[in-house]
Amino acid sequence: MAVSRRGVDVAELVRRATDAEPRAVARLISLVENDSPVLREVAAALAPYGGHAQVVGLTGSPGVGKSTSTSAIVTALRANGQRVGVLAVDPSSPFSGGALLGDRVRMQDHATDPDVFIRSMASRGQLGGLSAAVPQALRVLDAARCDVVLVETVGVGQSETAVSNMVDVFVVVGIPGAGDELQGIKRGLLELADVIAVNKADGDQVERANRAAMEYRTALHILAAGNPNWSPVVLTVSARDNAGLDELWTRVEERHSALEASGALHARRAEQGVAWMREIFEQRLLAAFKGGKDVSRRWSEMAEKVRSGEMTPTAAAEKLGRLAGIGEG
Amino acid sequence: MAVSRRGVDVAELVRRATDAEPRAVARLISLVENDSPVLREVAAALAPYGGHAQVVGLTGSPGVGKSTSTSAIVTALRANGQRVGVLAVDPSSPFSGGALLGDRVRMQDHATDPDVFIRSMASRGQLGGLSAAVPQALRVLDAARCDVVLVETVGVGQSETAVSNMVDVFVVVGIPGAGDELQGIKRGLLELADVIAVNKADGDQVERANRAAMEYRTALHILAAGNPNWSPVVLTVSARDNAGLDELWTRVEERHSALEASGALHARRAEQGVAWMREIFEQRLLAAFKGGKDVSRRWSEMAEKVRSGEMTPTAAAEKLGRLAGIGEG
Repeated sequence: MAVSRRGVDVAELVRRATDAEPRAVARLISLVENDSPVLREVAAALAPYGGHAQVVGLTGSPGVGKSTSTSAIVTALRANGQRVGVLAVDPSSPFSGGALLGDRVRMQDHATDPDVFIRSMASRGQLGGLSAAVPQALRVLDAARCDVVLVETVGVGQSETAVSNMVDVFVVVGIPGAGDELQGIKRGLLELADVIAVNKADGDQVERANRAAMEYRTALHILAAGNPNWSPVVLTVSARDNAGLDELWTRVEERHSALEASGALHARRAEQGVAWMREIFEQRLLAAFKGGKDVSRRWSEMAEKVRSGEMTPTAAAEKLGRLAGIGEG
Repeated sequence: MAVSRRGVDVAELVRRATDAEPRAVARLISLVENDSPVLREVAAALAPYGGHAQVVGLTGSPGVGKSTSTSAIVTALRANGQRVGVLAVDPSSPFSGGALLGDRVRMQDHATDPDVFIRSMASRGQLGGLSAAVPQALRVLDAARCDVVLVETVGVGQSETAVSNMVDVFVVVGIPGAGDELQGIKRGLLELADVIAVNKADGDQVERANRAAMEYRTALHILAAGNPNWSPVVLTVSARDNAGLDELWTRVEERHSALEASGALHARRAEQGVAWMREIFEQRLLAAFKGGKDVSRRWSEMAEKVRSGEMTPTAAAEKLGRLAGIGEG
């Protein structure tokens, strides 16, 4: 049956997506993002097309020049004739969707390029929602024969950890700080990195950026001594002057090739699939209950009572459990 | 009503626990560990007694001398007249419970000390179970007027991250490696640390340990430059020779006092309470379904089909969802 009982012709949409038709790609991402009832059908129809794209994550604090870097990388990849997808994941934003990110001015360079797909995904505060939707959006872009998909996420929460588990190679962007230190790489982010880019190595900041990169290399060299499988590369770039991004991409590809050659990439993607299965199952289960009017209405109230010490976490959880219809009355 | 309808006199158990009676403490921990139906009653009865103990996490890879260090710290605290609780969390062990860890020979020094409570907790492979049970066991030991509770966990999985979110101060133990590097601190663990102890600074390894500590200090100094709230202390110890552990403990107490004085400790514990509420709620919800015969029987089979590419994660999750009775038929 070509047309699902809900009136969406998934097979036709997927066929058009594999022809890289932008509207079909956008529609499919909307379907998976909204956890549409046709999701299973979409996933099954996409399954034969997976595994082609290099999936690269890119993160950093606000202000380090992530979007400029992403845009410059896209330009370089396009000059190479590669088709590119960009997923901008922002767990703090209440907005989502749309084929173009209106607020990301620099991305507009690529807005009219039919071989660049740009998509914003927001979690509406639900990190788990992203963990289920982003991998599916990646598969849509993969099926649309993107050679590279960049997943850009703002380094302010737990989303980096989640995203680092969905990609092949993870790039962290920082900038030289007031001294020679590196800013924009917060605690917990460093050890997820495969490649660390010190951005804003331009104008009178070149020396500072070089010193920050050098110090980071030294520090990472020491720290990596006991961790044979961890040796992130540090390099300086200027997204503004479009300098160093070729080398950045060369490093990303080197890492990718090494993972592929060793079989680590295949194993990693297989485990990502299992983690994703677990995520979808758990999110649906939790959503089925938390989304219930009684639970969601009382959640903040219970959290506040726990904070103030008025209720124990156990009592609050049990109350929520009773509202969800589990546990004893 | 003093005696619950299940025949456990919780109020009496808690009264005896607050008198530091070992059997009552052990019984209460068993009750919370098994997610007994009287858990809510236990939590409520314990609530008035919380907040006294310093809760210190201690982790490191197998072989770095965690247990020896823990035992030496316990000896020092006992010499100071302090009452001590030890929770040994081992997510890989299928065994759990018991007042004494038979397999932890060094701990036997303290086995007959009525002011030392030692308890092993295993997750039976369920990290989530630990996340719900360990904080409750901490409250039992707190109610038993332990001045300090040490939570020892083996640094091989995700348990360190979970444990680091349950404690006030987190200590990571490493050893000098074949060169001057530090071994036993795996990727992802470093940035959770408040205090890093380089153990085995004894015999002919003193110099190597000193150099490893020095290099680590340099590396952390560089890395911490952009992270003003992160400045772990590095020091050398010899648990074997009982050297440096006083200084280790001084550093832990300094950190604890600073957190307390700034109000950060209070805020941290309040948020830990909310995280714990969420954990209990989610675990129960998931357990109510995953524990169902159909879901648990098919879980590994679905995971294998996802790994091999035979099923998409979405289809597998939906299948599990149907077995759990959620989602469409």
